[in-house]
Amino acid sequence: MKSSQMKVSDLGEKGIIERIIERSKLCSQSNMDLSNFATSIGDDSALTNITMDENSYLVSSTDMLIEHSHFPYGMTYFQMGYKAVVVNVSDLASMGADNIGFLLNIAIPKDTLLDDFDELICGVIKACDEYDIPLIGGDTNQAGEIIISGTAIGQVDKDKALMKYGFQTGDLVCISEELGLAALGFELLNLKKQLTNNLFENVDLEKKLKAAYEIDSSLCEMAIFKALKPEARYLEGHILRDHNTKDNRLTATDITDGLASEFYEIINSDKKFTYSSSENLNDNYKKGIRIYEDKLPVEEEYKEIADALGLDYLDLFLHVGEDFEFLFTINKELKNQLSDDMNFYIIGEIIEKNTLEIVLSNGDIKNISSEGYQHLK
Amino acid sequence: MKSSQMKVSDLGEKGIIERIIERSKLCSQSNMDLSNFATSIGDDSALTNITMDENSYLVSSTDMLIEHSHFPYGMTYFQMGYKAVVVNVSDLASMGADNIGFLLNIAIPKDTLLDDFDELICGVIKACDEYDIPLIGGDTNQAGEIIISGTAIGQVDKDKALMKYGFQTGDLVCISEELGLAALGFELLNLKKQLTNNLFENVDLEKKLKAAYEIDSSLCEMAIFKALKPEARYLEGHILRDHNTKDNRLTATDITDGLASEFYEIINSDKKFTYSSSENLNDNYKKGIRIYEDKLPVEEEYKEIADALGLDYLDLFLHVGEDFEFLFTINKELKNQLSDDMNFYIIGEIIEKNTLEIVLSNGDIKNISSEGYQHLK
Repeated sequence: MKSSQMKVSDLGEKGIIERIIERSKLCSQSNMDLSNFATSIGDDSALTNITMDENSYLVSSTDMLIEHSHFPYGMTYFQMGYKAVVVNVSDLASMGADNIGFLLNIAIPKDTLLDDFDELICGVIKACDEYDIPLIGGDTNQAGEIIISGTAIGQVDKDKALMKYGFQTGDLVCISEELGLAALGFELLNLKKQLTNNLFENVDLEKKLKAAYEIDSSLCEMAIFKALKPEARYLEGHILRDHNTKDNRLTATDITDGLASEFYEIINSDKKFTYSSSENLNDNYKKGIRIYEDKLPVEEEYKEIADALGLDYLDLFLHVGEDFEFLFTINKELKNQLSDDMNFYIIGEIIEKNTLEIVLSNGDIKNISSEGYQHLK
Repeated sequence: MKSSQMKVSDLGEKGIIERIIERSKLCSQSNMDLSNFATSIGDDSALTNITMDENSYLVSSTDMLIEHSHFPYGMTYFQMGYKAVVVNVSDLASMGADNIGFLLNIAIPKDTLLDDFDELICGVIKACDEYDIPLIGGDTNQAGEIIISGTAIGQVDKDKALMKYGFQTGDLVCISEELGLAALGFELLNLKKQLTNNLFENVDLEKKLKAAYEIDSSLCEMAIFKALKPEARYLEGHILRDHNTKDNRLTATDITDGLASEFYEIINSDKKFTYSSSENLNDNYKKGIRIYEDKLPVEEEYKEIADALGLDYLDLFLHVGEDFEFLFTINKELKNQLSDDMNFYIIGEIIEKNTLEIVLSNGDIKNISSEGYQHLK
């Protein structure tokens, strides 16, 4: 395809970010110092050297939520506002940062009811309360749908920042809590939406939904709640940060686009970091991830519900995001010490082989594909 | 009207911001400390006390540009990207801040051509170069139209920050450069758009446009250029800041919504600041602004062109924004000293009377209404 005919959708979201970095170098006449950008690009937040304090990074994260793609069916205005804070706080937390302030940039349709608007703002404020991040400014605009662009600003000690890179062969691969709940919630909400809209195959959809609720109605409700009102692992971010030392390097990221996608992210990030000066990246790099199906914290009922909905539970677990749980790596020796401070699940380890693989319950080993959620694909 | 039936459009943009502050107090259980927010709310940027350095404020500004309302007819992708940086840098500059970094949050239609996207990013990067503010992070999304939410982060010495409030009776009211050019540019672009779209009254519109260009074609082109590629008064912000002392207080804001609207802004801001503890604001406050038509830096050709277009040039000057020039106040004694460092026009003074007025060339005195541009009205 000729470059002039290519569309941004041909790149996908991550390709677009790479493109921005590439164009930055081409466009910048003054040879813009992209070293700050480069250190943290692809990480959860931007790290900036603040001149006034040589020991700290300024940490900033910005995320835009657009009604039609980020607010699932059934989400209240309160939950929209709440989520706009959570997604940004989650990025800061997964760097181990302390919060400084939140900027709210909101566009709303002009016929939005004031009561609904108030509810949305209340969601923002409650989340700011919850995560101890004051609302410090913002902007309002008019648009055809609700758009909330939040920016969270924080700070972290330079030698404590939780990067995506820097893990070693033998490190344990961990997650902060059960995954896949939000993914299941989105599926259930989607079913409900189709039923409400009276679309095709009503009987079949109704049967599926009923079956899911009959297996475990409270699990279904929990899943929906997690999809509608996610929380950020703020506390866990601080605990991990406090355990992060030069000799005992932790790495962490929040799971927003599915576990598989985050695996690729951290491996790519580590690859870049490790061989940033070498030219033959792929030849030399020898780190990968192996996880075990049997170690995944999944309830039997979860598998049954996925089955009833005609879904592969591993797909939900690996390829759908928005859990905002942490994926992190620790040195084996840290295991017991960290267990005293927080709950987590060890699901695998860093291996000395350039693959991402899952050992299934039946002993088979399968490669994990990268198909996470990309907004522009 | 019952509150439950009210729409956000009934409030207008500034009303909405007030509403957000009000709801913040009502919703916050932990009695969120809004003092940071309150100091700078309504000012150009948020000021935050950064704990690590007691002498500095962290300054942050966020602005969302939406294609259908912020990108005039004829604007190139490059100019869209450039403007997204300028609007935020302008806010920081008008606080006297040094730039730290820029976060780019962009949503684009998925069928956007990659070449167009590259051009847009190039606009962002060139502006970042121009204003010495590195791009440090961001987010990309898909939307039905181009939405760019930029966040600029900077810092300023606490006793140097250029607030909107704090002027004294007798202070001179100044602007950094000629105003009204962007306003004229928007009018001309609008005419061209209507002509291109073959709308009604074609002959009349063509005549108007031709007349404008016959009066001064280069002024017309300059006006259009200013509307399409605004610049921020970064240098001027630093000069004003350096002259700002405890004994000789400067105040400043950038003119984004029209001069009249900014007059109301600075008076309201000063009112709140001055009597923040009193209950009878309106009774006690005795400061206002008087400007003089004869002191406005307006070329004769500008007036003629406005006339040819059927517009009142004072309306363009007072009630349309997007110039990104500075409105600032200085103590009389600073006049000569400041003239050595930068160009500016003295257009009036702070008076001991609670009015906003203009002394017309014929000697008549007229009140200035507040009708600036409000996005949600």
